Amino acid sequence: MTPKTATLSVISPEELLKHWQGHRRLTRRVTDAFPEDKLFSFSVGGMRPFSEMAIEFLKMAEPIARGVATGKWEQWKEGDSAPKTKAEILRLWDEATLAIDKIWPTIPPHRFQEVDKAFDQWENSGINTILYGIENEIHHRGQGYVYLRALGIEPPAFWER
Amino acid sequence: MTPKTATLSVISPEELLKHWQGHRRLTRRVTDAFPEDKLFSFSVGGMRPFSEMAIEFLKMAEPIARGVATGKWEQWKEGDSAPKTKAEILRLWDEATLAIDKIWPTIPPHRFQEVDKAFDQWENSGINTILYGIENEIHHRGQGYVYLRALGIEPPAFWER
Repeated sequence: MTPKTATLSVISPEELLKHWQGHRRLTRRVTDAFPEDKLFSFSVGGMRPFSEMAIEFLKMAEPIARGVATGKWEQWKEGDSAPKTKAEILRLWDEATLAIDKIWPTIPPHRFQEVDKAFDQWENSGINTILYGIENEIHHRGQGYVYLRALGIEPPAFWER
Repeated sequence: MTPKTATLSVISPEELLKHWQGHRRLTRRVTDAFPEDKLFSFSVGGMRPFSEMAIEFLKMAEPIARGVATGKWEQWKEGDSAPKTKAEILRLWDEATLAIDKIWPTIPPHRFQEVDKAFDQWENSGINTILYGIENEIHHRGQGYVYLRALGIEPPAFWER
């Protein structure tokens, strides 16, 4: 490996996928930590209940992976009604996990740097769109931690993935 | 650029620094959005006030950059008393921003992948330690958003950096 190559290898696609799925496992545990009714109803400061945040993550994750891979930005299961139970959210979560694992190796390497209009709206490089998805999930999941604490529930450890 | 090189160039060190400092600018705005007294006293669900989170970010950011660059893991301003005003936190924040910008180009490329024991405790690659620092900040900053909402204060937009 030349020094030039080494300079660029901050993180490889394989490591980034592993990192992302680690975060998604933690978000799944946070979702599962909510009592069924509180998941869909409880919030602090007039914010959304955590179910709506989890559904937002579902709307972003698989479609972002597919969009970066193919250049096609499709809405997630458009037309379907929103999941109404924790079990349904978790089932869709597991489906998205498998889908992302399947899509990931098909991302052409140049697409991480290539600028595209994600969902025909947000102009960004592939890597920045992926990071936005991961970090939006971390950001709102952190809010879910406050909800759980306010409910007297110990959230899963942040560092466990 | 060979295909092999392209495969590795998910994100460059320069882009990662820009990304990190963008997040740190947002965290600075979130800190600044708190009224002086609430920054040090307000919390939800028995959690820490946001001042303690901001000080935790300070304890991690510059020392992580320095540790990855040099292999020396030093505590942040050990022995100093914790900042007691918003102005002091923001001043230390700006000092850390300049320090990180200065340290960053000195990180030897191989250190992003090299495994080290951060702060003599957490064994991880340089990139994973840096990502942990960034994501820990996003996670707790998200909690600060809930505090601000609960205080009736509109937080800075997540996507503005």
